[in-house]
Amino acid sequence: MSRVSLLSDLLSSIGARSWFAGEERPQSVDVPELAALCHRLVSSRGEATGVRMAADIIHGVRALDDKGIKRFFHMLAEEFSPDPVELAEAATAYASHPDAEALVRLQQIAEPPRQELFRRLNLAPGGTAELVKLRERLLPLCRKDPARLAPVDKDLRHLFQSWFNRGFLMLRPIDWNTPASILEKIIQYEAVHAIGNWDELRQRLAPADRRCFAFFHPSIPDDPLIFVEVALTDEIPASIASVLDPDRAIIAAEDAQTAVFYSISNCHKGLASVSFGSFLIKQVAEDLKEHFPSLKTFVTLSPVPGFSAWIEALPKDVLERLEPAEKRAIDIVSETDWQADPARVEEARPGILSLAARYFLRAKRGDGQPLDPVARFHLGNGAVLNRIMHMGDPSRRGLAQAHGLMVNYLYDLPKVEQRHEAYAAEGEIAASRPVTGLLPGRGGHTLKDVA
Amino acid sequence: MSRVSLLSDLLSSIGARSWFAGEERPQSVDVPELAALCHRLVSSRGEATGVRMAADIIHGVRALDDKGIKRFFHMLAEEFSPDPVELAEAATAYASHPDAEALVRLQQIAEPPRQELFRRLNLAPGGTAELVKLRERLLPLCRKDPARLAPVDKDLRHLFQSWFNRGFLMLRPIDWNTPASILEKIIQYEAVHAIGNWDELRQRLAPADRRCFAFFHPSIPDDPLIFVEVALTDEIPASIASVLDPDRAIIAAEDAQTAVFYSISNCHKGLASVSFGSFLIKQVAEDLKEHFPSLKTFVTLSPVPGFSAWIEALPKDVLERLEPAEKRAIDIVSETDWQADPARVEEARPGILSLAARYFLRAKRGDGQPLDPVARFHLGNGAVLNRIMHMGDPSRRGLAQAHGLMVNYLYDLPKVEQRHEAYAAEGEIAASRPVTGLLPGRGGHTLKDVA
Amino acid sequence: MSRVSLLSDLLSSIGARSWFAGEERPQSVDVPELAALCHRLVSSRGEATGVRMAADIIHGVRALDDKGIKRFFHMLAEEFSPDPVELAEAATAYASHPDAEALVRLQQIAEPPRQELFRRLNLAPGGTAELVKLRERLLPLCRKDPARLAPVDKDLRHLFQSWFNRGFLMLRPIDWNTPASILEKIIQYEAVHAIGNWDELRQRLAPADRRCFAFFHPSIPDDPLIFVEVALTDEIPASIASVLDPDRAIIAAEDAQTAVFYSISNCHKGLASVSFGSFLIKQVAEDLKEHFPSLKTFVTLSPVPGFSAWIEALPKDVLERLEPAEKRAIDIVSETDWQADPARVEEARPGILSLAARYFLRAKRGDGQPLDPVARFHLGNGAVLNRIMHMGDPSRRGLAQAHGLMVNYLYDLPKVEQRHEAYAAEGEIAASRPVTGLLPGRGGHTLKDVA
Amino acid sequence: MSRVSLLSDLLSSIGARSWFAGEERPQSVDVPELAALCHRLVSSRGEATGVRMAADIIHGVRALDDKGIKRFFHMLAEEFSPDPVELAEAATAYASHPDAEALVRLQQIAEPPRQELFRRLNLAPGGTAELVKLRERLLPLCRKDPARLAPVDKDLRHLFQSWFNRGFLMLRPIDWNTPASILEKIIQYEAVHAIGNWDELRQRLAPADRRCFAFFHPSIPDDPLIFVEVALTDEIPASIASVLDPDRAIIAAEDAQTAVFYSISNCHKGLASVSFGSFLIKQVAEDLKEHFPSLKTFVTLSPVPGFSAWIEALPKDVLERLEPAEKRAIDIVSETDWQADPARVEEARPGILSLAARYFLRAKRGDGQPLDPVARFHLGNGAVLNRIMHMGDPSRRGLAQAHGLMVNYLYDLPKVEQRHEAYAAEGEIAASRPVTGLLPGRGGHTLKDVA
Repeated sequence: MSRVSLLSDLLSSIGARSWFAGEERPQSVDVPELAALCHRLVSSRGEATGVRMAADIIHGVRALDDKGIKRFFHMLAEEFSPDPVELAEAATAYASHPDAEALVRLQQIAEPPRQELFRRLNLAPGGTAELVKLRERLLPLCRKDPARLAPVDKDLRHLFQSWFNRGFLMLRPIDWNTPASILEKIIQYEAVHAIGNWDELRQRLAPADRRCFAFFHPSIPDDPLIFVEVALTDEIPASIASVLDPDRAIIAAEDAQTAVFYSISNCHKGLASVSFGSFLIKQVAEDLKEHFPSLKTFVTLSPVPGFSAWIEALPKDVLERLEPAEKRAIDIVSETDWQADPARVEEARPGILSLAARYFLRAKRGDGQPLDPVARFHLGNGAVLNRIMHMGDPSRRGLAQAHGLMVNYLYDLPKVEQRHEAYAAEGEIAASRPVTGLLPGRGGHTLKDVA
Repeated sequence: MSRVSLLSDLLSSIGARSWFAGEERPQSVDVPELAALCHRLVSSRGEATGVRMAADIIHGVRALDDKGIKRFFHMLAEEFSPDPVELAEAATAYASHPDAEALVRLQQIAEPPRQELFRRLNLAPGGTAELVKLRERLLPLCRKDPARLAPVDKDLRHLFQSWFNRGFLMLRPIDWNTPASILEKIIQYEAVHAIGNWDELRQRLAPADRRCFAFFHPSIPDDPLIFVEVALTDEIPASIASVLDPDRAIIAAEDAQTAVFYSISNCHKGLASVSFGSFLIKQVAEDLKEHFPSLKTFVTLSPVPGFSAWIEALPKDVLERLEPAEKRAIDIVSETDWQADPARVEEARPGILSLAARYFLRAKRGDGQPLDPVARFHLGNGAVLNRIMHMGDPSRRGLAQAHGLMVNYLYDLPKVEQRHEAYAAEGEIAASRPVTGLLPGRGGHTLKDVA
Repeated sequence: MSRVSLLSDLLSSIGARSWFAGEERPQSVDVPELAALCHRLVSSRGEATGVRMAADIIHGVRALDDKGIKRFFHMLAEEFSPDPVELAEAATAYASHPDAEALVRLQQIAEPPRQELFRRLNLAPGGTAELVKLRERLLPLCRKDPARLAPVDKDLRHLFQSWFNRGFLMLRPIDWNTPASILEKIIQYEAVHAIGNWDELRQRLAPADRRCFAFFHPSIPDDPLIFVEVALTDEIPASIASVLDPDRAIIAAEDAQTAVFYSISNCHKGLASVSFGSFLIKQVAEDLKEHFPSLKTFVTLSPVPGFSAWIEALPKDVLERLEPAEKRAIDIVSETDWQADPARVEEARPGILSLAARYFLRAKRGDGQPLDPVARFHLGNGAVLNRIMHMGDPSRRGLAQAHGLMVNYLYDLPKVEQRHEAYAAEGEIAASRPVTGLLPGRGGHTLKDVA
Repeated sequence: MSRVSLLSDLLSSIGARSWFAGEERPQSVDVPELAALCHRLVSSRGEATGVRMAADIIHGVRALDDKGIKRFFHMLAEEFSPDPVELAEAATAYASHPDAEALVRLQQIAEPPRQELFRRLNLAPGGTAELVKLRERLLPLCRKDPARLAPVDKDLRHLFQSWFNRGFLMLRPIDWNTPASILEKIIQYEAVHAIGNWDELRQRLAPADRRCFAFFHPSIPDDPLIFVEVALTDEIPASIASVLDPDRAIIAAEDAQTAVFYSISNCHKGLASVSFGSFLIKQVAEDLKEHFPSLKTFVTLSPVPGFSAWIEALPKDVLERLEPAEKRAIDIVSETDWQADPARVEEARPGILSLAARYFLRAKRGDGQPLDPVARFHLGNGAVLNRIMHMGDPSRRGLAQAHGLMVNYLYDLPKVEQRHEAYAAEGEIAASRPVTGLLPGRGGHTLKDVA
């Protein structure tokens, strides 16, 4: 019987089991029918009926074309929002007599029925994954018409933040023993340094100095949510090419001093802004440290996606006040094929580094946070901007977005908490002395001096 | 590396890993300190800090004694409810201008900050299980002081209904190959027919004609939520003793005609009214049918917990209008040791059965539902009251609560949905002809005739 | 199974654990040193020492170059054979007094000490796999110098027949959820219809109408011993191209009538003549039948590796007595690119089929068995030669070895035993009527008529 | 490992699958029929037929009563031994011309056909376990009639030594998460300190300072071969009572200094003299050291099964020459309830210890090995007799066999190999100074001095 159990487990956890499988499912349903089903599902008191209806709705929604899905979301916005008249009444009632009963009623009416609808749709086999895909279809529409669709998105996101709570996620290594069905998704999802084929994938996973880890949700066990690729090295590498070099000397994991997080990819657009990346990096760092006590340094090798655009957008007056080296660098990188000429590359170095220091340490968004999104992520996690590497990524993409720049963010585990707090509370950007020393005219000064 | 992965999985899924394990945890914290920590946790933007604080709070709460936990819940009620002044303002604002912005603000303020607090407490290792235990401590206090504590319970229940959504649960067989650490919980949780020791447990799990299934939540993988024990038999058994008889002829599962659900136990008081029992029975029935096509009949063997109390409470005028056989039965069961005298047992039979038919088919609560809680559960699932068995359970408990009565509820899978709807919508009690035929003076009539 | 045990299992079964890992292993050892170690290992009474020495020997042998390994095998032949003088004495003693004591002594001396040596080498981590590789290096040397090395091979084979006993093998499905580390071996080992890359592999494993199964040995859990690829189809396919066509209509496994075993590959040369292929086919057929009761027909789609060579070697007098159609066919297939001309292909058909019938039904080796090795395998398993397909495999290889011919062998499960016996005992070749009807001049007659 | 493969693994490894399950098996077969089947099985060339016949034979043999099984073994002895006439011819032929051909023939005829029979019986589902049970029934008969049955046993043992080669065994922890079906076997098999019930079992497995490990064979995955129970402690304990005390202070495994192997049990009589105990202890010691680097000392807490009997059997003249303390001790332990009187216990101490030193260090069997079987086992593994504890086991059994004596054998991992060799080669008994110091009149001298 234990055989049956394993199987049953898999079936139920994979969500592949059909409910009352013998009966037929509607092949194609239009939005009014779906709306009717949704209303029935929300008002039904019957649990089993719910599973069946949820499956039918999900099946029908999946079959909708672009036009249909838009109508479906509009329907959700219109028919599954709180009733404004009832809500106004409840609000008035509470405002005049703010007692417990009025509060409960107000809360009940204020919660959009969509939330209960989404919870019940999750009853369907594979429901969680389907709801994530649903949001993936919603988001672009939402960006075009936020007034109408943002409330729908808000409810889905609210639910996902509860369901994809870190407490529910499972960390799993991805390696050459991982099922091919999951590995093909790694190829597909890799967002930073593309994996061209299975041989390249093997290069990322199989060598003794490579690791990869992913978060999974128990209800979507065959599809990762986010993954990070790690290189175990002697020293902090100066470029992505040296990390990915298939001819490098491969060291034993037990001897490595440094763990380099060189690629982090989110897998599902439908989980946008439901963040678990910082948990992943920190837990992987902790786990690696436990298994390989020789590891001393945990750094990223990160792109600088906003650098070129920031230079491009520098106002004229600022441009004029730049240091000569900086001006020269800007001139050089605007030439064709400058990166192919070692002399020019060297000539641009001081200016690029100086500009980079400005970009990271001084350039701020309206809310006072750094311009660079990757910097915001890692600094927000409590990492330190550790090193800026000229020509760290001379790929077409690296040149286009950052004139070849790459950086390391250092995760100094014992101080991560405190730095995270300092950044969150006071916006303090943690940077190493070599980095702050790059700021023009302030060599060797600490960040506080230059801010 | 696959080794590490398995381990890491287990660790992370079991939730047993410590976060930044090297550092010390506070040994004992008082409620004001916990309150401060809770406020910091809710307002913190930092994810990693959150894990740490959540673990500290959970650790501190677990250490609270009865007085402390009461104070802690009061604190949650007072400090983590919506701010009435702000909410009244938002309500007024919405009432006067019910636009999208006012709605969002109203919703935000109406949602108790407790919900976010509970979501963040779930970040802690083992957080989900701890929150369930938290509610177990809350419920008795809540019953004594609902005005103050019901809102706290409402938020926990709301969260649990989302997290313990059927879509997230895993069905697993429990058998003699199950880890002892789980089996000892089955012994502990069995609520219907007690399991005295491991040999009795083996009798329930190991024989070829026995099955047991449980729902688990992926974040609490070593502790079942609810389980059902099943006997595979030729015919519908007439008593629990015949089901549990260790000397019965054991049949091969492949030859069984009937699956008898003879015990269903919820495992966690903290999950009260977060119901998944009906899903369990239906899914187990489906699974069994798939594996053993010879199974034709799915019935429960159920207690009748309210029967004795109902007779006890019959008003005098009703008592007088009972049939003579019914009166005689009431007299007999009030005698000492009547059950030991076969002649009396037989003499009581017609009256008991007639009374039972009244109890199930006519006696109603204020809300129109049947008096018997077990009947409400199974009829609400779409089952049929199939058979009433005099002396089905002559145990001390069976005599005390039901004068020895047991019943079968029949799960007729193809009709379960429709019966569930009929019951939910119209309160229609589905009963077999033999049962309705027991109603005094109406032998052979349908239920509608006698209602 | 408990979590911990699974992990431990992996650790111990992968055989990757080092023994007294801290100490160093000899880097390179010459054959005399290895010989000395082997003698010590065989004579040692200590088990733990044995593990260590076995690991050292295996390590040293693996490092030997072609010359070294030859010397090593010669050393095994010379130094680990029975002592001829002692054996002659024991033989004489037994011949004169054949009592129990003399028998035991004779047996002890007759068993080559190599067998005990090999058993002790298996103590080393990964020892079983290493011994299989050892025989892979032995076999080509043995073919060149059987007088000297056949006894060494005989001992290894004897051991493998005991260790790779069907009772120890595990059947496992290979599918798209199988670890990549195993799948890359499937690509590498496929011997019949080559798999070019991972996309082609996916085509063989992932579609709903494909299955693949392999035997594994528990001590070599990450490397299959033999595997079979299966297509689930409506009807018996007429060519391999139709089976592998990526644009075919894919049917649900539940609806399939026919299981086609279209490729069987042994994975390890070191296991040559340690046969488990027939077990694999029969067990897979049984398993498929159990899971998919709609399956009625189990056939292979098999190459005919000896057909072209047989025609080539026909003596002149036989050639002259062939039917005209047969002669014509032989002429056609000797033309260049005949297969590209549909008219010629059709013209050759009757003669090819007639020749094929002769080849399968009449051509015999010296020992009375069919010439074709694939035929010997399947007929020996109790299968029936069911159908001969002209142009079933028009690939370069198919044309070269069989003028495009393919055949089906039918596994009629209830009769497999009896046919196997008839074939083994009387050499009876089971063939369908359509096949026997192809024999020239005997259309419609049974095989016994034509033999 | 992929999900599907795990399942399939279980199916195939549990060995529960039936072969051609639809057909009937003979219910009861007599020995002549079994003999005929055995002959057919050995001579059959067909593999599949073999599986079927093997299953039938095993089924039939299992049903034999004591008389029947005896006849069956006699049949094996008579009908499956080498043919003495043929063998004498082959022996004569070899003796006169000892060439390769004559050798092969001699070897073939010298190997009893029983070996091939047993190998083929292993084809049956669950065959390996059945053959172990077969030998369990053989051994007592063999002891009564070795002349006739020892050769049968020799063949089974020969096969088991090959099949249960350490290279094939899996080490698994046994803990409170282990399936109950395996745990009940631990209760049943525990041979040293009986486990009374499941609560006592839990006491042995669940506390943080307890470990248990077992060897399994992959073909018998649900039944351990041998297991060892380990206590993690601060110091070497002075008695078994202090180890098993449920009220002891339980320490964290990470803090333990000492691992105490306090119980080792073989599980299957049918595997007698197929030894893997020394592998188990050493591997467990290595594993524990790896996981808990704080562990410094690995000792057993062992019984002294032969001590009382040795004293009993001391010849009169030796008795007379004993030291006065020794004589006094012998007097005391012959009194009733001496162990209940602390004064006497103390009085007996010096004499008992002195006698024990003689028993361990001087008393020898005919072959020069120590008298005590447990001593032979551990010293043979390379352990040191470390400490002798008066009243270490005051249980009824401990008093009866050893007047309460227990001892520690120390596994000093870096020296285990060398000590094992010294013991095997020169019979050198390794003992600590405190132990050798107990020898009468030689306090402080080394063992060589006193031998």
